[in-house]
Amino acid sequence: MQFHLNGYRPGDPNVAEPLPAAQPTDDLPPAVDVLIVGCGPTGLTLAAQLAAFADVKTAIVEQKAGPLQLGQADGIACRTMEMFEAFGFADRVLKESYFVSETAFWRPHERRRSEIVRSGRIQDVEDGLSEMPHVILNQARVHDFYLDVMRNAPARIEPHYQLRFADLAVADDGSPYPATVRLERVGSRDNGQVKSVKARFVVGCDGARSAVRKALGRELVGDSASQAWGVMDVLAVTDFPDVRLKCVIQSAEGSALIIPREGGYLFRIYIELDKLKADERAASLNVTSERLVAAARRILSPYTLDVKEVAWWSVYEIGQRLCDRFDDVREGEDRTPRVFIAGDACHTHSPKAGQGMNMSMQDAFNLGWKLAAVLRRRSTPDLLRTYSQERQTIAKDLIDFDRMFARMISAPPKDPADPTSKGVDPAELQRQFVRQGRFTAGVVTQYRPSIIVGEPAHQRLATGFPIGARFHSAPVVRLADAKPMHLGQAVSADGRWRLFVFAAAEDPADPASRLGGLCRFLDEDPNSPIGKSRRAGDDVDAAIDVRAILQQGHRDVALERMPAFLLPQKGRYGLRDYEKIFCPDLKNRLDVFDLRDVDRARGCIVAVRPDQYVANILPLDGYGEIAAFFDRFMLG
Amino acid sequence: MQFHLNGYRPGDPNVAEPLPAAQPTDDLPPAVDVLIVGCGPTGLTLAAQLAAFADVKTAIVEQKAGPLQLGQADGIACRTMEMFEAFGFADRVLKESYFVSETAFWRPHERRRSEIVRSGRIQDVEDGLSEMPHVILNQARVHDFYLDVMRNAPARIEPHYQLRFADLAVADDGSPYPATVRLERVGSRDNGQVKSVKARFVVGCDGARSAVRKALGRELVGDSASQAWGVMDVLAVTDFPDVRLKCVIQSAEGSALIIPREGGYLFRIYIELDKLKADERAASLNVTSERLVAAARRILSPYTLDVKEVAWWSVYEIGQRLCDRFDDVREGEDRTPRVFIAGDACHTHSPKAGQGMNMSMQDAFNLGWKLAAVLRRRSTPDLLRTYSQERQTIAKDLIDFDRMFARMISAPPKDPADPTSKGVDPAELQRQFVRQGRFTAGVVTQYRPSIIVGEPAHQRLATGFPIGARFHSAPVVRLADAKPMHLGQAVSADGRWRLFVFAAAEDPADPASRLGGLCRFLDEDPNSPIGKSRRAGDDVDAAIDVRAILQQGHRDVALERMPAFLLPQKGRYGLRDYEKIFCPDLKNRLDVFDLRDVDRARGCIVAVRPDQYVANILPLDGYGEIAAFFDRFMLG
Repeated sequence: MQFHLNGYRPGDPNVAEPLPAAQPTDDLPPAVDVLIVGCGPTGLTLAAQLAAFADVKTAIVEQKAGPLQLGQADGIACRTMEMFEAFGFADRVLKESYFVSETAFWRPHERRRSEIVRSGRIQDVEDGLSEMPHVILNQARVHDFYLDVMRNAPARIEPHYQLRFADLAVADDGSPYPATVRLERVGSRDNGQVKSVKARFVVGCDGARSAVRKALGRELVGDSASQAWGVMDVLAVTDFPDVRLKCVIQSAEGSALIIPREGGYLFRIYIELDKLKADERAASLNVTSERLVAAARRILSPYTLDVKEVAWWSVYEIGQRLCDRFDDVREGEDRTPRVFIAGDACHTHSPKAGQGMNMSMQDAFNLGWKLAAVLRRRSTPDLLRTYSQERQTIAKDLIDFDRMFARMISAPPKDPADPTSKGVDPAELQRQFVRQGRFTAGVVTQYRPSIIVGEPAHQRLATGFPIGARFHSAPVVRLADAKPMHLGQAVSADGRWRLFVFAAAEDPADPASRLGGLCRFLDEDPNSPIGKSRRAGDDVDAAIDVRAILQQGHRDVALERMPAFLLPQKGRYGLRDYEKIFCPDLKNRLDVFDLRDVDRARGCIVAVRPDQYVANILPLDGYGEIAAFFDRFMLG
Repeated sequence: MQFHLNGYRPGDPNVAEPLPAAQPTDDLPPAVDVLIVGCGPTGLTLAAQLAAFADVKTAIVEQKAGPLQLGQADGIACRTMEMFEAFGFADRVLKESYFVSETAFWRPHERRRSEIVRSGRIQDVEDGLSEMPHVILNQARVHDFYLDVMRNAPARIEPHYQLRFADLAVADDGSPYPATVRLERVGSRDNGQVKSVKARFVVGCDGARSAVRKALGRELVGDSASQAWGVMDVLAVTDFPDVRLKCVIQSAEGSALIIPREGGYLFRIYIELDKLKADERAASLNVTSERLVAAARRILSPYTLDVKEVAWWSVYEIGQRLCDRFDDVREGEDRTPRVFIAGDACHTHSPKAGQGMNMSMQDAFNLGWKLAAVLRRRSTPDLLRTYSQERQTIAKDLIDFDRMFARMISAPPKDPADPTSKGVDPAELQRQFVRQGRFTAGVVTQYRPSIIVGEPAHQRLATGFPIGARFHSAPVVRLADAKPMHLGQAVSADGRWRLFVFAAAEDPADPASRLGGLCRFLDEDPNSPIGKSRRAGDDVDAAIDVRAILQQGHRDVALERMPAFLLPQKGRYGLRDYEKIFCPDLKNRLDVFDLRDVDRARGCIVAVRPDQYVANILPLDGYGEIAAFFDRFMLG
């Protein structure tokens, strides 16, 4: 963490300095830059992102009376943990959560079909996929952490509770606040009172029954659900030996998943229930928690299950549904969107793949920096068109995966004694599970070329950083203080672009080196995106943060001979920032150039978006291409 | 972390459940079990430890008006980080602090003596010394973390500020609260008002000028200080290349140390000032911050130093001073102590070795569990005699080291051109620095045999766990959930003893194995310290927590065949605790049996005290010795 740049300040460095412009939280302002509807993980991710900007006025409203106490979602993918690291609370999640290290598979006994036996056990996340583990934590704690980020960030945002979205009008008259949202007070003494808020942008993060989506006239389209499932979080005594492992259980009595939960005692069981008739809803089955417990006991036979407390339970039908667009632009229209929907409001999934919450938070992470960049006039407004383009495609891919996976888990196990029997071979299920591990980890997302994602013209310079995929962190040593760390730790959710400059093998101190030339271009050339985007009072890295990774060991490089551009002077005192240059972690034989297949002879630039996705790979001397890429969307 | 044992509870698992017996924090109670005087790191460590016990009534008083904003101490040794892990906030320190990875050495140029040149660079902490790094963080933040622990713990302790210790009387009449302390209100409208508090025990954590120490008639004895030093925390621009490394600088203009600080910009400089005359104090030199800056500039020549802000500065004289006892028992008396002193109240050091705060917190960690054990009638009162015995000896060892090290740093550098010149050879300084790394890390403390430290009769069973030294954590995999972790993470500052049972190579599931036999003894035998110490309503691990480490890989062990004693049922529901059994981390080739030289054929028991020190090593079948060891001090 960096702090004290503009003078020493005692106290908690996680809390931003009070700002004169901090918005009052006691009542809703009449006009805001962004109005977020819904305080779930999607809305909170977006609010936390926007809270990083003191000059963006954000309000988030929620119809519930206060913060969530008990959430339904619990799976946190590696990719989401990488994002939490950028928001600064991955450590808090790591401390409290259950780590999904391995997954066990169970199937019916070959002869005693009513009994389950273990059929396999696999590592949950393949080695090297992410620096972060796959973890399980009650969604309500994730909310708590986001609320702390919002509270402590420069814009100091607190949610406005007990406000229900009523309706929305968007004026076409070029007014600065084109959207008018009416909100109805619920559950307090002013019940029914209607408040009107004007906004430049409105984002509906209000769940599968989204009122914002309905106001846009959009709908979720997809399968009518035909399979009901029950889920419960229990405290129980069992002799089932794998109760602290994630388990995929196929039994003669139906399928189940076990997800151990945080704290060492609680676990979640998903239980297959009846097939639903057309248009029948799971809720209409009148399932009770007792019935879920009885079903779980049958499935786990011959093991015992003595449930002591059901902390939460629910029934649901599997439904993969999707909106065709995630904004208010109609087919054939050519304009900047003003209203967006995100998360469950535009896509729903089977909970068992553990994807819904992760996907939803990534929607918001994708949208947040774009809204801020446009509002702060750092980028052209058409940046906002990429949100629906990028996320709708990804959501569709995920739903296709989810449908296949859910079908496979719901299918009966194949009976090995009867080769003609239908159903899924347990070995095939396990194979699919392994193959789809990257999907589950959330790291397969790859955005297609657009104004902010380059064509793969120079991909070969660093094949380990696929363009459009998330920046895959790697271990390094920071030159100035010899700290072993992860490159990803240098990335904060602060709306900045990053250029990771992988130097060529030559002496980086040589002014004639490619690194020296690039630094001169970035620092001095009138076409440099850094110079062009820099405003009065900005530090050199205010919009684009340049980090260099050298090939030499950190003791073999003289810091004092590095380009001054990589030791920039910042803040009101012009203090030097010593955290821009890194070296490979040679001691632990973890050379980032090898790990990510970076061309040692030529080096390269990896341009990374504020949401951690690789925007482009460019040659160190590709000055024209660098300038042209940022010219597509960046404003001076 | 473990939670939800007695039912699901939403909210922050770091915050203990509210207890009916929680003490009010608005005013001081008339009588307490422990009165702590002083809210420095020593007093806060003690209060945080005692806060773990809802049935111990603790008050901590401080004459200042509120929490420290800007502290002087900043070095946090590896050993201290291990303790912070047990208190649950190591992660918060890791996030904010500067990591001391390497130390650079500078000396005068061989010909241009007025200029310094780099003479060497070493790794700061040797590999494998601790799972924790050596870090630097403002003491005030450590205070904040302790205050959070106190606030959230079962006893929910808040300090009582603006109360100055006036005097102390200890009655000899066998009354339950033999100590009466008079406290004077300062700085508020009740200024001068005197309050009287009765206490079973009083602990003076009130610094080098301790009023509690004076009330006991004890004094700090040691060197009269003859060398003045200045210290300042600065924000500055410099071309000195190693400003983000810890630096030991010997220059022709005097010596200096640079300690980079948290946040990437701030750093501390210690600067050698004048020799003091007899009885002269550093404060009398009328040093100004300007003079310190000027001296620093001379020392750093030929490098520039442009100081922009001095966040804090001070001058001091080096003084290693020590009390002959750390309690109120007089020479020749044979009784339980009632009053203790800890931290700077009984030993002071040169700040530059970075030892004072670390040593002081370890005093409190040593004393805290002992006070709780005696107050809760878990141990015999003579346990309290070991505090002064153990800590005074360690303090003396440290002061001897500190004196040598301070002398060496203050000595002029030897002039290589003049072999007859006095002074310290820079190479020799660097050698000493490396040799003393373990001392600086705080891991050399080794308590001598006593009622709570065994003779080394069975040390050969695990030579990597020296009896009397701190339990040296090692990587393992938890059997039930395959989580790779550190054994040390299983240790909390909860006042419990721990038996780390390293199984022999045989099948651990075999009832005839040594592990099986030991579990039967511990679970069932009338001489078992677990049975003897267990009280109505206690979980089986309430006083002694048994953890087993097997030799087999975690996939090669059937959890369901493990002794039931290692899967104990706990809490109001009788839920199974799955976190008692560990396996070596074979995948990463980190086998704890190899790392700590545990006898594979015979296994062993490593008995660990509540303050993380190894109390004894015993054979797996040494039932009589196990019983006899705990009989020395443990009550039923």
